[in-house]
Amino acid sequence: METTRVGVVGLGTVGTGVARLLTEHRDRIRRRAGHTVELGRVVVADLSKPREISFDSEMITDRLSDLTADEEISVVCQLIGGLEPARSIMLQILESGKDIVTANKALLAEHGPELFDRARELGRSIAFEASVGGGMPIINSIGQCLSANRIDSLHGILNGTSNFIVSQMEEQGWDFPTALAEAQARGYAEADPRMDIDGSDAAQKLAILSHLAFGARLHWTDISCVGIDELEFVDLEYARQLGFRIKLLAIAQRSDAGLELHVSPTLVRSGQPLAEVRGSFNAVSVVGDAVGRVFLQGAGAGQMPTASAVVADLIDTAVGRTRITFQTLELWSHGEVRVKIRDHSEGSGHYYMRFMVDDHPGVLAEISGVLGRHQVSIASLIQQPEESGHPSGQVPLVMMTHRATEGAAGRAIEEIEELPSVRGSGVRMRVLS
Amino acid sequence: METTRVGVVGLGTVGTGVARLLTEHRDRIRRRAGHTVELGRVVVADLSKPREISFDSEMITDRLSDLTADEEISVVCQLIGGLEPARSIMLQILESGKDIVTANKALLAEHGPELFDRARELGRSIAFEASVGGGMPIINSIGQCLSANRIDSLHGILNGTSNFIVSQMEEQGWDFPTALAEAQARGYAEADPRMDIDGSDAAQKLAILSHLAFGARLHWTDISCVGIDELEFVDLEYARQLGFRIKLLAIAQRSDAGLELHVSPTLVRSGQPLAEVRGSFNAVSVVGDAVGRVFLQGAGAGQMPTASAVVADLIDTAVGRTRITFQTLELWSHGEVRVKIRDHSEGSGHYYMRFMVDDHPGVLAEISGVLGRHQVSIASLIQQPEESGHPSGQVPLVMMTHRATEGAAGRAIEEIEELPSVRGSGVRMRVLS
Repeated sequence: METTRVGVVGLGTVGTGVARLLTEHRDRIRRRAGHTVELGRVVVADLSKPREISFDSEMITDRLSDLTADEEISVVCQLIGGLEPARSIMLQILESGKDIVTANKALLAEHGPELFDRARELGRSIAFEASVGGGMPIINSIGQCLSANRIDSLHGILNGTSNFIVSQMEEQGWDFPTALAEAQARGYAEADPRMDIDGSDAAQKLAILSHLAFGARLHWTDISCVGIDELEFVDLEYARQLGFRIKLLAIAQRSDAGLELHVSPTLVRSGQPLAEVRGSFNAVSVVGDAVGRVFLQGAGAGQMPTASAVVADLIDTAVGRTRITFQTLELWSHGEVRVKIRDHSEGSGHYYMRFMVDDHPGVLAEISGVLGRHQVSIASLIQQPEESGHPSGQVPLVMMTHRATEGAAGRAIEEIEELPSVRGSGVRMRVLS
Repeated sequence: METTRVGVVGLGTVGTGVARLLTEHRDRIRRRAGHTVELGRVVVADLSKPREISFDSEMITDRLSDLTADEEISVVCQLIGGLEPARSIMLQILESGKDIVTANKALLAEHGPELFDRARELGRSIAFEASVGGGMPIINSIGQCLSANRIDSLHGILNGTSNFIVSQMEEQGWDFPTALAEAQARGYAEADPRMDIDGSDAAQKLAILSHLAFGARLHWTDISCVGIDELEFVDLEYARQLGFRIKLLAIAQRSDAGLELHVSPTLVRSGQPLAEVRGSFNAVSVVGDAVGRVFLQGAGAGQMPTASAVVADLIDTAVGRTRITFQTLELWSHGEVRVKIRDHSEGSGHYYMRFMVDDHPGVLAEISGVLGRHQVSIASLIQQPEESGHPSGQVPLVMMTHRATEGAAGRAIEEIEELPSVRGSGVRMRVLS
C-alpha cells in the first residue's frame, strides 16, 4: 500500500501539534487518507533544545538539505513564521519537488505572488487553510464549497488576540493596557503584540481571503487599517447603550463601484452572530449571491486547532485534492484582475462618533452644523446627564450618523476638532448596517 | 479545452436553481472549474408544464433513457425527491456510467448503503452536500476540513421549517398551529409538514452526518425523535425566564459508553450560538478533539442556497475532487463499525420539567419525593405566583434537574403523572449543558 511521507520544518507550537497528530493518531489519519501518512523528517534550528515529543535521531535534523534531499518525502509542512528564512525555505522545498502545507499568513500576504507562481511553474502545490482562522475552514469554504457563488461581502473577526482583549475590556470594564496585560499573561498575546493590536495581522488575512474570494490583487498594506490600541472602555459602554458591541472587523464589500476593504473597530448590533463572538474565537460571515449568508466560527489560533487545519491540508495533499484545487484556483495568478479596489475615502457607512465638549448650550448646534455642511446627518444621539461629565465641565457627546462617505465623515471630524468648545480628538468608528 | 456536460433530472425548485446557475453564470463556473461545465440535458416528468427557464427542445426530455444513453454527459444532478422513482433513477444513472450529485436526504437516509455500494462497484461517485443544511457546507467540513479530528459531538439545527415555527412562536407569542399556518403561508412549510415537525427530517439528516462523522451504522428510524408539534408557548416563556431558548436540536454525542443520538426540543442557554439561530436558518456546532468547537450557520433550504451546494458538488465532481473524497470516505461502506450506538434510555442529561398541579401545600414535597427515589435531583424551580394558575386552582410547577439518566427521568415522570394532585401529562425537555 502507498505511503505518503511527510516533512515538518519548524517544531514550535504548531509544528509540535502537527507531529503529535501524525504520530499519536496514525490509524485515524490512515483511514481518512485511505493510505498511510507518516512523519518522515523534522527540521529544527536547534537540535539541543528540549522537545515535547522525542524523535529518532535520524528523523530530526538541523539541516534543511537532509529534508530536501530525501526523495521519499513528497509533502512538507513549513511551519516557521516570519518572512525570512521562511521564504527561502519555501522556495528550496518547492525546488526539491515537494508540495507544501503552511500556516504562515505573513509570508503569503507578503510573498504570495512569487511563491504561488514558482509552485505552479514547478508543478507543485501550496495549501494554506491554517494561515487564516486556525481550525475554522474558511479557505476551503470560499475556495471549494462556495464555488458556485459570486462572493458579495466578507466580514471577519480574524484576530483572536484582539477579540480576546476587547471581550475582556467589555466584560471586566478594563482599559486597554490592563486587558492586553491579561491577554499576555494568559498566552493569547505575544510579548510583542503589535501586529495583532494594530490590525496588521487581520489585514494580512483579509488580503489572503480577498485574493481568494474576489480575485483582488493587492498588497495587505494597501488595506485601510485601524487597530484596537486606542479603543476606550467608554465607547464599549456607549455602544452597549445603543444596542451594539464593538469588534475589530476585517471587511471586504463588493459594489458596482469596486471592492472596499478595511480593518477597524466596528459597531455590530447585539444578537448578530458576529457581535456574539467572544474571547479568542475567530468568525467570518460571507455573503454569496446564491447561498446568501454563511457564518463560520472556530478557534482562530492555538496549537491543536491550527494543527487540525495543517493535517487536513496534508491529507488533502496526500490524496490529490490539493493539486486539483491549486490548479483551478486563480490565487495570485497573472489572470485578469476582475475587481477594482475602491479608494478608501470613497467608501461609505454609518458612523459612531464621540466628542468631549464643553457643557454649554449651542455646542450641539455647532457640531451638527459642521456635519450638515459635509452631508453627514445624525441618526441618534446619547445625551449624557450632567454628572457624567468630567470635573472640568466637559461632557461626552455621542452620536450615530446616517450613511455618509468616509471622506466626508473624516473631513467633518477634523473641522469639529477645531471648534473651541471641543476638547481633544474625536472618536469615529464604523457601524455595521 | 475539456468540457463537462451535465444532466439534470427533476426541474422543481432546486433543479430550476441549478439550471439557472449553469446557464446564467457559465463564465464564473468555467473559472472555478478550470474548464467549461455546461448543461447538456434536462429530464422532467411533464413536458407540457410551464417552466421558468426555456430550453431547446432537444435538450429537455421526459425520457430518462435520453439522458442515460447520452455518452457526452458524465455527471447528473438527481433532484427528484422521495424514495421512488428517485432510487431507481439513481441506479439507472449509475449503471449508465455517470457520477451523481444529489440533494435527496430521504433517499440517502433510507437507501444510502445500497446506492453507495453500487456506485463504488461501478467506479462512480455520489456527492450530497445539498442533502444536509442546504448551502451550509457541513458535509464538506466533516468529510474534508476536519479530517484530522475524532469528532466528539455534533449539535445541529437541521430543519429550517421547525426553527422558523419555534422562532415565530417565541417572537410573536403564538401557539403551534398559528405559527405552522404562518410558515405554510410563507412557503417555509409544505402542505404536508409532517416530516418537518415530527423531527423525521432532522433525524434523516442526523443519520447522514453520523455515518460521516462517527462511522455510525444505523437507520434513521433508530434515532429517538420528538418533534415540535406538542410544543407549547408557555414552555418557551418559562425557558426564557430561566435564561434559555428552545430549539429542535439533532444531537450526536460520543462517550466511552458509545454514541448517543436523538432529536428533540432542547433548552439552549441564551447567547450560545445555537440559541441565537432564528428563522429558517440551519446551524451545526461540531466538536473535534483537535480543532475544538466549530460552528456553521447558513440557509438550510431554499432554491438558490441548495442550488449553490449542488453546483459546488458539480464543480468538485467535474474537476475530480469528489472521486477522491468518495473513495477515501468510509461512508456506508462495509468497513468495521467503529462506534457502538448507545441505548436511548442509558443516555443522561439535564432536564426541564413542567407539571400542572393542584395549588395546595405538600405537592412539591410529593413530586420531589418521587424524583428523589429515581435519583433525579432538582437544580432550580420556578414558583408561580397564585394568579398565574388556572381558574381551576391548578398552577404550573417548572423545574430544571441535575444530570439524570433518560430512563430514570422517564420513569419518574410516569410516576408523577399518577399522583392525584398532578393533572394531565408532564412536559420534559433536555437542557444542553
